[in-house]
Amino acid sequence: MKIFSNVVINEDQKPRMRAIAGADEIVFGVRDEVREIDKKAFLEAEVVFGGCPPEWLLETQVLRWIQFGSVGFGEYLHLDWKTIGRQIVCTNLHGFYAVPVAETVLAGILTFYRGIDKLIELKKDKVWGKWQVRHKLKMLAQSSVLLAGYGTIGRRIAGLLSGFDCKITAYDKYHAEADIHMLAQFDAALPHADIIVAGLPDTKETRGMFDRKRLGLAKEGAIFVNIGRGSLVDEEELVDALNNGRLGGAVLDVTQAEPLPPGHRLWDCPSVIITQHTGGGSVDELDRRITVFEDNLGRYRKGLPLKNIVDFEKGY
Amino acid sequence: MKIFSNVVINEDQKPRMRAIAGADEIVFGVRDEVREIDKKAFLEAEVVFGGCPPEWLLETQVLRWIQFGSVGFGEYLHLDWKTIGRQIVCTNLHGFYAVPVAETVLAGILTFYRGIDKLIELKKDKVWGKWQVRHKLKMLAQSSVLLAGYGTIGRRIAGLLSGFDCKITAYDKYHAEADIHMLAQFDAALPHADIIVAGLPDTKETRGMFDRKRLGLAKEGAIFVNIGRGSLVDEEELVDALNNGRLGGAVLDVTQAEPLPPGHRLWDCPSVIITQHTGGGSVDELDRRITVFEDNLGRYRKGLPLKNIVDFEKGY
Repeated sequence: MKIFSNVVINEDQKPRMRAIAGADEIVFGVRDEVREIDKKAFLEAEVVFGGCPPEWLLETQVLRWIQFGSVGFGEYLHLDWKTIGRQIVCTNLHGFYAVPVAETVLAGILTFYRGIDKLIELKKDKVWGKWQVRHKLKMLAQSSVLLAGYGTIGRRIAGLLSGFDCKITAYDKYHAEADIHMLAQFDAALPHADIIVAGLPDTKETRGMFDRKRLGLAKEGAIFVNIGRGSLVDEEELVDALNNGRLGGAVLDVTQAEPLPPGHRLWDCPSVIITQHTGGGSVDELDRRITVFEDNLGRYRKGLPLKNIVDFEKGY
Repeated sequence: MKIFSNVVINEDQKPRMRAIAGADEIVFGVRDEVREIDKKAFLEAEVVFGGCPPEWLLETQVLRWIQFGSVGFGEYLHLDWKTIGRQIVCTNLHGFYAVPVAETVLAGILTFYRGIDKLIELKKDKVWGKWQVRHKLKMLAQSSVLLAGYGTIGRRIAGLLSGFDCKITAYDKYHAEADIHMLAQFDAALPHADIIVAGLPDTKETRGMFDRKRLGLAKEGAIFVNIGRGSLVDEEELVDALNNGRLGGAVLDVTQAEPLPPGHRLWDCPSVIITQHTGGGSVDELDRRITVFEDNLGRYRKGLPLKNIVDFEKGY
C-alpha cells in the first residue's frame, strides 16, 4: 500500500511519519514546489493524509481513504459524492480544535473579568494602580453564559466552565443536548447573559445573526465572544456598541476580513481582544494532527470503522 | 442590642445595613474622621462588624461577637485570648477571597498559554501577527499543575481546573486532602510541573521558600504563580530565571514590597504579569462582605454556631 502525505511534514516529524507507515511506502508532498510530483504520488496512493485539489479525486483509481487536514471541507461539496463515495471514504478533523479554542475563549473572558488587560498596560507604564483596577473586577462565578453553538467547541467551553459555578445556557438548533433550540428562545435569553459566545458556522441562517437588533438585546456591559465565523456579526454595529459602552468588551478570534485590514475600526476599539484566528493553534498542532492520522490508519489497517467520517449530504 | 459597623459603609449600602439590623440599633463608624465617636459606639455595641484597634477589645464590657472584615488577624494575636475569649467570639472572612483569587490565577496562566499578552501588544501596534503567535501557544489540557497550599484558595484553583484535564498535585503540610505533605515530596514534584502556584502564608518555614535552589528545580519554561505572600520568593533569583528564559513566565499577585517600588527589576521583566494584589478584588467586594455579616448575624440571633470562628491558638 502507498501512503501520500499532502500535509507538509517538516524534517523533525518525518521519522515519526515513517514509523507510522511501517512496511508501507510513504511519500511526502513537496506542495508548492513541484505540483506534478505531488499529483503523481497522489494518484498512486491508497491512503492520503491532507486535502488536495478537488479534481484529483475524480482521477484517482486507487485511493480508498483520505484524511483531511482540516475540519471544513466546503471545497469538495460540489463533487458528485454519490459516485465518488463508493470508492473513497473521507475523514476530517472534527473536534480537533475544541480544546485550544475553548481555552482561548476562557483566556479572553478572564482577561476582561480579572483586569489583566489593564494590569498589562499599567506594567508597561510602570504604574502601581491597584485601586483603580481592584474595585472594577468581576467574577465569573455566578455569571450567566449564553453559548450559541453546542458542537464540540461549545461543549468543551461548557466543560471548562463547569468548575466556575456559571449559569450556562446553550443554544443549538441541531444538537439535542443544548438547552434551547429556537432562535426566539435565544433572543429571550440574550438580555440575561453576562457573556455571549458566538460559535456557529457560516450558513445562510447565521450570516449577520448578530445585527443591530440582536446586539441591542444584550445586557448592558455584556462581553461578546466570536469564535465562529466573522460573517455572524455586523462589525459596524459591534464597534458602535463597544465604543458607546453598551457592550463591556469583545473577544474576537474571527473577523469578516482576515488579516484585519489596516484602518479597520476594530484596531482602534479599546475594549476588544483580537485573537487573530490563533484560537485553534498550539505548539504541537502538527503533532496532534499526525496523531489523528495515526489513530485512523490503525483502524483502517484493522478494517475498523474510521473516526470522523465526513457526511457530504449534511455538509458539516 | 447595639450593632457597630467599623467597616466603612458607603451611602448606597446603608439602607441594606439598616434592613439587616432590623429592630436593633446600628451605628456606622466614621473611621478616620473622629476616632473617639467610633470608640464610644464600639464600647456600647454587643456586635461589631469590622476590625478595631486591639486595645479596644480590652475595654469593652458588652461586646459578644466581632466579625472581622478580613481573613488575617495577626494584629490581635498578642492579646490574652484565654481571658478575652470567654466574653468575645471572633469570626473572620475565611475563604472569602478563594473565588476571585483563583479566577485571577486562571486568568494569568491562560494569558500566557493562549498568547493574550502578545495579542494585546499586536493590537496596540495594529499588527496582524497570527503566525508569529499561533505556533507558540500552549494548552492547559494535559499540563501538570503543582499547587503549594491547599486551603480554600488552592482547593478553588483545583476546582476551576477540574474541567481542563490537568494533572494536579497539591502540596500542603496541614491539609489531609492534599496529595503530598512533605517538602521533600514537593521538591521531587517541582521538575515535572508546567505550572507552579505558590499559595502559602508567610511563616518562618515558608519565608524564602522559592530560593535559587528551588527555582532551579523548576522545569524549563514553567510558569510560576504567586498568590501567597511576597516573602515566599527570592525576587532577584526569580527575575534572573525569567530574564535568562529558564522560567517561561510569572504571575505575581504579591511582591515583597507593595506598591512595587519604581526602578524594581520586575517592572522591566517582559514575561511577568503583575496583578498588583487585585486578586481578591471585585466590584461587589463590600456587598459580599456584608452578606457574610448578614449570614452570621442571623446565626447569632438564633443562637446557632457562627461560621469561621477564629482559633487564636492555631493562629490562622
